[in-house]
Formats: sequence, structure tokens, C-alpha cells
Amino acid sequence: MASSRAFTMTGGDVAYSYAKNSTIQRDVVDAGKELIKEEILEKFDLKSLGFDTPSIVVKIADLGCSVGPNTFFAMQNIIEAVELKFLQAKSQNLSALEFQAFFNDHYENDFNILFKTLPPSRKYFAAGVPGSFHGRLFPKSSLHLAHMSYALHFLSKVPKAVVDRNKSNVLNSSEEEVVEAYSTQFKNDMECFLNARAEELVSGGLMLILAGAAPDGISVSDTMAGVYNDVMGSCLKDLVKMGVLGEEKVNSFNVPMYPATVTELDSVFRRNTNFSIEKMEKFAQPMKTPLTPEGYALAVRAGSDGLIRNHFGDEFAEQIFNHFNAKVEPNFSKFLEVMRNNLNLFIVLKRI
Amino acid sequence: MASSRAFTMTGGDVAYSYAKNSTIQRDVVDAGKELIKEEILEKFDLKSLGFDTPSIVVKIADLGCSVGPNTFFAMQNIIEAVELKFLQAKSQNLSALEFQAFFNDHYENDFNILFKTLPPSRKYFAAGVPGSFHGRLFPKSSLHLAHMSYALHFLSKVPKAVVDRNKSNVLNSSEEEVVEAYSTQFKNDMECFLNARAEELVSGGLMLILAGAAPDGISVSDTMAGVYNDVMGSCLKDLVKMGVLGEEKVNSFNVPMYPATVTELDSVFRRNTNFSIEKMEKFAQPMKTPLTPEGYALAVRAGSDGLIRNHFGDEFAEQIFNHFNAKVEPNFSKFLEVMRNNLNLFIVLKRI
Repeated sequence: MASSRAFTMTGGDVAYSYAKNSTIQRDVVDAGKELIKEEILEKFDLKSLGFDTPSIVVKIADLGCSVGPNTFFAMQNIIEAVELKFLQAKSQNLSALEFQAFFNDHYENDFNILFKTLPPSRKYFAAGVPGSFHGRLFPKSSLHLAHMSYALHFLSKVPKAVVDRNKSNVLNSSEEEVVEAYSTQFKNDMECFLNARAEELVSGGLMLILAGAAPDGISVSDTMAGVYNDVMGSCLKDLVKMGVLGEEKVNSFNVPMYPATVTELDSVFRRNTNFSIEKMEKFAQPMKTPLTPEGYALAVRAGSDGLIRNHFGDEFAEQIFNHFNAKVEPNFSKFLEVMRNNLNLFIVLKRI
Repeated sequence: MASSRAFTMTGGDVAYSYAKNSTIQRDVVDAGKELIKEEILEKFDLKSLGFDTPSIVVKIADLGCSVGPNTFFAMQNIIEAVELKFLQAKSQNLSALEFQAFFNDHYENDFNILFKTLPPSRKYFAAGVPGSFHGRLFPKSSLHLAHMSYALHFLSKVPKAVVDRNKSNVLNSSEEEVVEAYSTQFKNDMECFLNARAEELVSGGLMLILAGAAPDGISVSDTMAGVYNDVMGSCLKDLVKMGVLGEEKVNSFNVPMYPATVTELDSVFRRNTNFSIEKMEKFAQPMKTPLTPEGYALAVRAGSDGLIRNHFGDEFAEQIFNHFNAKVEPNFSKFLEVMRNNLNLFIVLKRI
């Protein structure tokens, strides 16, 4: 847990909380809405799922949900699509239909905030499920749908080979040895992830995944994670020079995140025999809210404040982000470029 | 929600947290262990519950769980008893047996602490379910066992008639009009509680309730709640006289809690036709840890800090409890006496 625990979004009510700085992710939710709807209408097979009994409970999980509101929008989109599916199937059971929604994230996620902000007029019974989605979270055959939005790139831990080198991955994220160790960790994690979900999803159950992916053949330093690493790395180096941070402390800082390529993702899913790949396609992510340097800086902090704070301590987090923020503006065109290069994938897996 | 929201135990890491001041409740868990085991062995009917399929998931809820560790002990006790039941039934399915544990309490409960302190070696998949147990929390027929330990006396709200009088119930808890309003609210709440559980429990499912009850014929002022009210009432009056608290503020303070008698509980359960009363008996609560005035004061604060803080504000809570604590010692023999009079009931209801 130690290295992955920090990777929860920022809860609470601060200016850089995830709740206030997740419009980029909101755009993803919106973009995913129609895609999800189509898949559910086409592939959520009511009969083979056993939904021909008088009382029906559809169980849905959002994996790596963070705090609201995006996870609530996503849950609502899924439920509306399932209702439509029942309606189209002219099911007698529509009035008996009930939903149980499981919101999952790490133990360190702010579930108190998540629960307090649940939409009052929701159509589902809500539950929070703490724990890493790289392991088992639910009983056998207890889910009909699992959804995941931009959480696939989180690793269960920093690869051991990288920890052992004792040189922060943000200082050398393009080195072959580092890339190799991260790639191997990602494959192992994905195998654990898929095996766990294979146990938990009923036969015929769907997994709906929205994920970023690096284009094939691109260098790590041209990915979103790579640019983040480079800029954060140069900040940390500055702060060592300024005598603010110790070199040892910086060397032991690593980000448990991996920007897999389309080919890597494809091969990971193909290797697992419990799921059929129903869909794996790019989708456009319309940026409704034009990104500003300030917005980008806040989004980065919402996503990595916990990680920085856990490693460097509260007293240094502010200084590190102030320094980082100052570097966003001069690097902003690079940030935008890699964001444009970044692919958005919609992946649908069906439990065989 | 407004009036009941405060009735969560104190989370966090303070001296008066529920986690650190719940040994009285721990004794109850221990006392309940054997009782629960016997009931499950005798009345949890595997066949009629449909547990003759290859894969078995037993779903258990703890209602009004607060934070750990008591709810974890209770869950473990229940699970061990169910395992023993499967073992005795020589079920082929023991190895396939899985448990899903739902920990329920108000939205304001400290679920973050609850999740972070989950026993690492637990035998169940854990989920948190926020919301009032006076309403629906789970989908239809989705629970096999519901457990509740000393939470039945919490009301969903302060009765409207009491709010309208604008005179704090702690200042006059024995007045007929107040007693009547509380009793009516309790009956209504219990009806909602039982109707909700009737939807959620499968046919044959069990509800295991440990609850305090006032002996029949006792005056309200001789119940645990009555003595708490009287002492807290005299504190608040003092603080008004001292000019610390406003009279208006004190008058609008009411405790959403009702010490039902054995007869009242019996009639409430009898009225509901969805459950059979399998058992309703007194049990002895051995006080393994002798109660001291300090221990009592801390336990009271763990239980009512949120209520006081919410109504009077953080700045007055400390003063109110300091004043209350000073009154515990001179009233301690009275506290002990009403605690001795208080009955501990073990109630087992079976969903018909």
C-alpha cells in the first residue's frame, strides 16, 4: 500500500480539491455518456444475466471513483442506459428494478466527503468500498457492471527495481531501465486487476473503461506523464539546489503511474481469457472548458497533492507546488501538445 | 436529517473518540457473542435461504455501526457462527463461502476512520453504507443477516411536538406531554425501521438486535437517558445563569433518543407482520472493566460530543463537557443505579 496510498485525489474543501478541479474529467464523463449508453443497449443481455425474475437488482461499481461529482454523473449515465435497455426489452420488471451502486477507491480516499455529497435524489442504494482495484473487492459473481474512468494508469506500487535504484523516476523517466520496470509492473497489475474482476463480474457482465493511452511509438517524455515528470523533476532539482529539499528525499520520490500505449493495452486485454474485447476505440474528448495554465496547475495539484504531501510532508507541499505552478506557464504549450497527442480510449470487456 | 445527524459517535483521534471509549459497548459485544452463535446455529436455515448453489455469498449488515473496533468484533462473531453452521450442515460449499459485510451509519459517521481501521486479516469484503436505518439502505432481498447493537434507542428526529414547545427535553424529560411525544415518535420510527428491513432481508433472513430497555413501570427520570438529561439539563441551566449560554439556545436543544420499555418494544415487534419474534430475552452484561466517573464521562462525551457541538458550536462544547464532568462524580451512584436497572435485551426476528 505504502506507495499507492497517496494516489487519492484531494478531498476536503480546499481550493485545489478534486471536487472543485475536475472539469477536465467531467468532460470525459460527458464524452463517455453516449458511448456507454450504446454499449449497454447493445451488449447488456438481460436474459443471460438472469434478469427474468420478479425482483431485479442491478449492481454497478465505479472503480477508482475518487470523490464526487464526476462519479455520480457517471453512475447516473449508466443507470439511465440500463433503464432504457429494460424499457426497450419491454420488460415487465421495470417497476421492480433497483440499483446498488458501489463506489470504490483506496482506503485513503475521502469517503466522508463522497457520502456527504451523494445526490439526494439518486436512483440507487449507495455503498462505499475501500481498497485497491488491483485486488479483490467484491464477492464472487456479485457485479453486473464495472466502470472505470481514467484510473487504469495508476500502478499498485512503484516497481521494486525503480525503488532499488534510489533515483527518482521523475528525474529520469525516459531511461530504458525505468521504462522497462514500469511497463512490467503495469502488466502484472493489469493481470491482477482482470483476474479480480473476472471473479466478481457475473457471466455476461460488462466492464466499461475510459482510459488515456499514449500513441504507439511515442517517447515517454512526450506523454502527459512524461512532461509532468520532467517539470516536477526540474522543480525538485531546483529545490535541492536551493537547500529546501534533501537530495536523499528527492531520490526516494517516485510516481506510481504508467502511460501505457495502445498496443500495450491491447495485448494486456488479449492475454486474459476471461473477457472478450467487445470494443476498444479512440474517442474525442471535447474540451468544453478551455484549459488555462491556472486550471492545469490546480488539476495537477488536485491529483498529486496527496502524493507530494505524503512523501515530503505538509510543510514542503506548498513550496513544491508554488514552484511547479511557476513552471506551468512557460511549459504550457508543451502540456497542451502532449494532451492533444494523448489518446482517449473506450474499452468494453465482457465477462465470458 | 437535521436533528439526527449529530448522533454519530466521535471519530478521529481525540481522547474522547468512540474508538477509545467504547469498552462498555465492547463488553456488550462479548456478552452477545454466544447468544448470536446459538441463534445462527439454530435458525439460519441454509436450505431455505437458497445456499445449496455452488457459489455462496452471505451478506451481513451492521446497522448503526459507528466506527471500530466493536463493529469488527461483532462482524467476526457472526461470521464464525455462520461458518460453524455450514460446517455442521456438512455443506459441500464451505470452501466456496464468501462474506460481504455492510457497515452502516449516518452520513456524518467517520467512515474514513472506519475504513482505515478495518482488520487487515478479515474474512469478508467490506462496504460502507451511509444513511439512516429508519429508511431503506439496501436493495430488495439483498441481506441475509442484519445486526444492531445498542442503536435502537436513537430516533430519526426530535418529535415535532417537542420542538414546537421550545423548551429543551433535557430540562423536563419526565413531563407527560414530552414522554408521550417521544413514545409516539419511537413507534413511528420503529415501524419505518421494520418495514425497510422487511424489504431488504431475504425470506428466512435474521435480524439480531442487542438493545437497552427500561424496566416496565419505571419513571423516565430513573432511566439512563433520564439521568443523563437531568444532569445535562442542570449543566445547561447553570451555564445560562452564568451568562455563557443563551436561554433560547438551550431551549431549542433536544436529544433524539428514547428509552423504550420492554413492553413497548414487545408491542412494536408484535405489530409488524413481516417478522416472527424468535427470541426476546434479557441477558446479563458483565462489566469486565469497572466503570469509573472518568470512564463514564468520557463515554458520554464519545456519544454526545457531536450532538452538543452541532447545536452549541465548537467554542462551547469544551465548557459544557467540563461542567458536565464536574457533575458526574457527585451523581455517580445514581448513574450506577440506573445502569444496573437498565435491561439488556437480545431480540431475534426472522423475516417470514
